[in-house]
Amino acid sequence: MSFFADDKINFEILKKRAFNGRWADMADGVIPLTSADPDFPVAPEIKQALIEYINGGYFSYVPPTGLPEFGGCLARCLKERKNEIIDENLVLPVDSAASAMASIARSFLKPGDEMICFDPCDFLFREAALCAGATPIFFPAKLKGSHIDLSDLEAYITPKTKMLGLCNPHNPYGVLYTREDLEHIMSLCEKYDIMIMNDEIWSDITYSEEKFLSILTLGAERCSRVLSVFGYSKSFGLAGLRIGAIYATDKDNFEKVVESSHVLSTVGGATSLSQIGAMAAMDRCYYWVDEFIKHLQGNRDYALNRLNKMPGITCHRPAGTYLLFPNVSSYGMTSLDFVNTICEKTKVKLVPGGHRFFGDLSEGYIRICFATGRGVLTEGLDRLEAGLEFLNK
Amino acid sequence: MSFFADDKINFEILKKRAFNGRWADMADGVIPLTSADPDFPVAPEIKQALIEYINGGYFSYVPPTGLPEFGGCLARCLKERKNEIIDENLVLPVDSAASAMASIARSFLKPGDEMICFDPCDFLFREAALCAGATPIFFPAKLKGSHIDLSDLEAYITPKTKMLGLCNPHNPYGVLYTREDLEHIMSLCEKYDIMIMNDEIWSDITYSEEKFLSILTLGAERCSRVLSVFGYSKSFGLAGLRIGAIYATDKDNFEKVVESSHVLSTVGGATSLSQIGAMAAMDRCYYWVDEFIKHLQGNRDYALNRLNKMPGITCHRPAGTYLLFPNVSSYGMTSLDFVNTICEKTKVKLVPGGHRFFGDLSEGYIRICFATGRGVLTEGLDRLEAGLEFLNK
Repeated sequence: MSFFADDKINFEILKKRAFNGRWADMADGVIPLTSADPDFPVAPEIKQALIEYINGGYFSYVPPTGLPEFGGCLARCLKERKNEIIDENLVLPVDSAASAMASIARSFLKPGDEMICFDPCDFLFREAALCAGATPIFFPAKLKGSHIDLSDLEAYITPKTKMLGLCNPHNPYGVLYTREDLEHIMSLCEKYDIMIMNDEIWSDITYSEEKFLSILTLGAERCSRVLSVFGYSKSFGLAGLRIGAIYATDKDNFEKVVESSHVLSTVGGATSLSQIGAMAAMDRCYYWVDEFIKHLQGNRDYALNRLNKMPGITCHRPAGTYLLFPNVSSYGMTSLDFVNTICEKTKVKLVPGGHRFFGDLSEGYIRICFATGRGVLTEGLDRLEAGLEFLNK
Repeated sequence: MSFFADDKINFEILKKRAFNGRWADMADGVIPLTSADPDFPVAPEIKQALIEYINGGYFSYVPPTGLPEFGGCLARCLKERKNEIIDENLVLPVDSAASAMASIARSFLKPGDEMICFDPCDFLFREAALCAGATPIFFPAKLKGSHIDLSDLEAYITPKTKMLGLCNPHNPYGVLYTREDLEHIMSLCEKYDIMIMNDEIWSDITYSEEKFLSILTLGAERCSRVLSVFGYSKSFGLAGLRIGAIYATDKDNFEKVVESSHVLSTVGGATSLSQIGAMAAMDRCYYWVDEFIKHLQGNRDYALNRLNKMPGITCHRPAGTYLLFPNVSSYGMTSLDFVNTICEKTKVKLVPGGHRFFGDLSEGYIRICFATGRGVLTEGLDRLEAGLEFLNK
């Protein structure tokens, strides 16, 4: 557990570097359990690969569709880790998973088209639809046991529906999809000829009780309508390197994405260092991810146990991601008021549910990121508890 | 001259890393005098800054509008080096100058609008207009002495003209604009209410006989319609880091660009390492640029002298850039046939004029990049000369 011990966290550097609602954005003394970005330094092999490249002294233009080894590297690790079979020639490294999603949307959607986005779900699905000038249609993604109830999904499909956004594992629920779920989604998309934007950025982070199942395991032929997205921020802590990848099963669809990502003109693309970092991660750092997951599973169980004992809070157990998504609606406040009050009173920052980040139906929830040391997490939950005491007075 | 001696070029690394029509894209033995990307390793301070950052171990999310020090850094160096006064709060680091141009176009152009693009000029102006769904209108930019003849510019303005693309210094001519030129352009844009996309990516590379003059020296008030672009590939060899910057004089226009660059949602943005590299370049590496320019000026004079002695070739003297743009139309071939034949016969690769890279009016020209060692340049010109001998047979 050496990489993930409390004393491996360098708060001094985090206070300078970790933005986007994390340490560098916080007033002194505030603990952020916010954006999904680990508090731990990256694996040493990533640093080493970057430094080796830099010592070469050249930062020349990279090939528009990525470094020659990138596709093979991703194909290998998807196969080994997740039984996903892809063609290494249909892989495009891009500058972040977020930009991948926007490029995919722009490839297949035009103004007037509709894209089904789950609610709650990460706002980047909605954002991708809007980037393409299309209309996001929100499917109420309610939990039924430990999975999302998809029984009503078909009702949200119209003749204008051209894409469905699948977040697997689901952020913020942290749930995985079963083979039946994926079959159901695929059948509907086949029936109505709908493309699937398949975001697998969280697919490395799943816990022992449930196995990640990719929609790509339904077979290359059925998956010609699937454009998948991977990223390196969640598993490897590379958010600041802005590196992600698009992988397709169909060559024509891949070429559409290449076109709309503007890499051929150099308007789009991923940096050489970002690709080098991601390749080192894929090739040499899954041992680090395995250790990370062990640490995270401990954190999850610890936090879940504590949260469910707190008055007025209920929280389901996520099978993947390092996110908890407790329901705090019993406090009768908006999520934003809730997190602001807690932060003001006890200096722990949480992400509010609600329209902005996860959709209207996430109102009444908060999101907690537990990719930190046990010490920070314990203190953060102590503070939340103290904040609740104040609210319950 | 130590940084730019022949033996400082590492061909082994260039063969692996320099894509986009350079060494790594060439058949064995072919010399590329092609894309505008130096053959020399970057300044040591850039490597050092990157390695220091990497040793910190964190690649957390950067702020959407860039690292806090970035704007001040650019404002300082524009003022010191080029007498350009900008507000450091109106600077947005973005992932390449190419992407900056596309974002600016998307901020102010919609389908049906027209953007005036010079012909010849870098294809990225046309590309930016097209990214916004607008129509590029080509102004024939003919040389008159050592400057571009702008006397006919007004005739290309229509009620649909909403933007003008200004490439200063001009690629591929390598000419600078005089105060009168800039006054003329500004007056027309004021008269017809046209925004100016002011690409200054080449502004560091000018020679002693003529001084770079930015349109921003016309004053902040008149320049509210100007959105400027800088990049770090030409001056510092950082093409692979995909880093550029947009700087505005008007706050509302700046905010439009921030919006259309999608940085607020993390769909767009520049990596932490790229920003660190660019800041080290701006803060600590202009001594290196000064030495580079001395070397380049020697190369320019040498190459120009030789080219103008070659049969059937005429070439004007560029006051900036490391590009030569000789007229080879006397050979009665398309530019593409010309460069292909020369490459086939004598293994030196040049960039063809013509629609693809510089516009229709560049047909009959070729572009030569001389940001290499004198040895490579000499050999490249020897080969061009030998190729001409073949053509003249």
